Amino acid sequence: MSVGLNPPSSIAAVAGVRLASVAAGIRKPDRHDLALLVVTPGTECAAVFTRNRFRAAPVEVALAHLETAKPRALLINTGYANAGTGEAGRRDARACCEALAAELDCRPEEVLPFSTGVIGEPLPLAPIRAALPGLVGALRGEGWVEAAGGIMTTDTVPKAASRRIEIEGRTVSVSGIAKGAGMIRPDMATMLAFVATDAAVPAADLEALLHEAVGQSFNRISVDGDTSTSDACCVLATGAAGVTVAAGSRAWERLRRSLTEVCVELAQAIVRDGEGATKFITIRVEEAAGAAEARAVADAVAHSPLVKTAFYASDPNWGRILAAVGRAGIDDLEITGVRIALNDVVIVSHGGRDPSYTEDAGQRAMDADEITVRIGLGRGRESTVLWTCDLSHGYVTINAEYRT
Amino acid sequence: MSVGLNPPSSIAAVAGVRLASVAAGIRKPDRHDLALLVVTPGTECAAVFTRNRFRAAPVEVALAHLETAKPRALLINTGYANAGTGEAGRRDARACCEALAAELDCRPEEVLPFSTGVIGEPLPLAPIRAALPGLVGALRGEGWVEAAGGIMTTDTVPKAASRRIEIEGRTVSVSGIAKGAGMIRPDMATMLAFVATDAAVPAADLEALLHEAVGQSFNRISVDGDTSTSDACCVLATGAAGVTVAAGSRAWERLRRSLTEVCVELAQAIVRDGEGATKFITIRVEEAAGAAEARAVADAVAHSPLVKTAFYASDPNWGRILAAVGRAGIDDLEITGVRIALNDVVIVSHGGRDPSYTEDAGQRAMDADEITVRIGLGRGRESTVLWTCDLSHGYVTINAEYRT
Repeated sequence: MSVGLNPPSSIAAVAGVRLASVAAGIRKPDRHDLALLVVTPGTECAAVFTRNRFRAAPVEVALAHLETAKPRALLINTGYANAGTGEAGRRDARACCEALAAELDCRPEEVLPFSTGVIGEPLPLAPIRAALPGLVGALRGEGWVEAAGGIMTTDTVPKAASRRIEIEGRTVSVSGIAKGAGMIRPDMATMLAFVATDAAVPAADLEALLHEAVGQSFNRISVDGDTSTSDACCVLATGAAGVTVAAGSRAWERLRRSLTEVCVELAQAIVRDGEGATKFITIRVEEAAGAAEARAVADAVAHSPLVKTAFYASDPNWGRILAAVGRAGIDDLEITGVRIALNDVVIVSHGGRDPSYTEDAGQRAMDADEITVRIGLGRGRESTVLWTCDLSHGYVTINAEYRT
Repeated sequence: MSVGLNPPSSIAAVAGVRLASVAAGIRKPDRHDLALLVVTPGTECAAVFTRNRFRAAPVEVALAHLETAKPRALLINTGYANAGTGEAGRRDARACCEALAAELDCRPEEVLPFSTGVIGEPLPLAPIRAALPGLVGALRGEGWVEAAGGIMTTDTVPKAASRRIEIEGRTVSVSGIAKGAGMIRPDMATMLAFVATDAAVPAADLEALLHEAVGQSFNRISVDGDTSTSDACCVLATGAAGVTVAAGSRAWERLRRSLTEVCVELAQAIVRDGEGATKFITIRVEEAAGAAEARAVADAVAHSPLVKTAFYASDPNWGRILAAVGRAGIDDLEITGVRIALNDVVIVSHGGRDPSYTEDAGQRAMDADEITVRIGLGRGRESTVLWTCDLSHGYVTINAEYRT
């Protein structure tokens, strides 16, 4: 089940990028579990990885490879996360890179490995090696949706998004795919996102673009507050469209906006398809004295199991929201300055129930599948936004199932 | 349902303390919902309250009263939390104190009010006022278990604990009652605990005793990570046993230990009766470089929905525990130094699955109702302990039920 999420339809091809996925039988038969994204030589790449100190082996290998070479290929498997597997795990991740490099006639350091799935089990190399020739043979520029399907774990819908803009008379595409948040099933981990443009972007500028886009998108979502051992987001700029966009140039702002929009759409898709999600919640904190406190309040509300179960129950339980605001760590918060609205229904003003509020109006707002919670702190001019979902029986069921 | 928790049997009377509870019909009929604890004049009191900036009206009134007088009576109602009720709520809380003071022939400032229940609704004064004469008439020294029953909300078992020690040939009693954590049902709030001894303890020493005991008990439990608007813990020392125990005296250590034991027993009872709890989990973090990082790791593990659902499923999912350790915010944590055991089964060593570990052994440890997770960080000599429960369908059901 997902909230307001349809399978992606037309995802623009990005010149210089080819993709494919196959059913390699890594952990389960007849399920696409190995995806490949290959880029043209000279493509710039910027990437961010999980800040969890417990990092999966492929993350370690990808970081090392990024230091020595520009990537030519991204190889992503599901089934096993190759995390908690120590030196043997790093050896296995490198072995995958070597096998693919032989197939593509490039260097192993030009391959970035990504794995998602069960933690602590070794990655089976034989089915991956056996599947590589077929995978390479299936590569095509229109393979975005297929690749989005090939990186799914408990996702119920493939996630892809895309934008096209005109720059200097040429069409520039920005397309991306992602897979689900929440640490997905017993032992399953990982949010992965891969975005590419065919504009040429200088390395330092691409880095800036990545951090801005991630800050506006993947760093603003929360399903259960747990960060995984394998989270990664890569942005690639192939340059194959024949247009260079550098910071400060006239087209920069448009490329920046398109890339951010693609990332926001993917990030929201992850929440809409969050484990057990029945509602998509936007939390907007306004009138904060600083960005940090705005985020702290948004986080406290988004991570509160009591707020999340109230959303699940469509219960306009403003006391729980107010209590979460109150424990967000703002020592000098005057609760009498706090205002809270659900969509356009003001439920709290001056730290108590708004005089105009009726349970009926609150109930109508909560009955919707998509709800915006606006929290005014009355302290300043900073604001922030964060997207989350409710906490349902579905979440408990998905995460309490035995590994099979 | 609760985990290994029996109704309290013999709770020692504390000289100078009388208690009672009645069914006042505050929100539901035929349910004990109003409790009273009255102490002898001259009793010292130390108290701590919620650090949530959104504080219930009775908390504000109790704090003001404690500044002007030593309390003679503690009046606790369930049904309504009198929180988010603004100035009218404070007026209502004071009105309760005035009505009880008239009944007891003391000053209103000598009464501390406590409320727990639905947030944002006004406290109905008429049933409380009407019930006071009967409540006062029912006071007795043996009323501890009855009072424990009178402060329950979603608690399934009354919570009381007690210790007796001999000091200078006299028997000194320490007894206490508490009610549940978790922000209990839609809108329900509050952990409350009231502990008394008949030793005489100087005010400053009682304050120290309270903070030590709370630090070792109520501040080490977590059901869902939400703090309420009404949390309170009061420790009273009546002096009616005719023995003075001051810091540094020979008996100090024994009184300190007894009081801490009573608080730990009550705190653990709250977790054992946590909303939807099916398992009682002790998280012990060892070999930390400092107390703060030990606590941060314990908190990250205790609050992880993924770890908690794995406990619910009896799934020995060490990857989730390790991932929670990894995101606890210790920037220079070497994951290869981490060791994790479930009871006596070592599941992780050197940051990966222990070579001796078998799924069978892990499964046996997880099948128990009470599980100790020992996490060694390999960084130093600090340790901490924290008690929590699992995250079950029962938790979601309890907290997603409509208000009725």
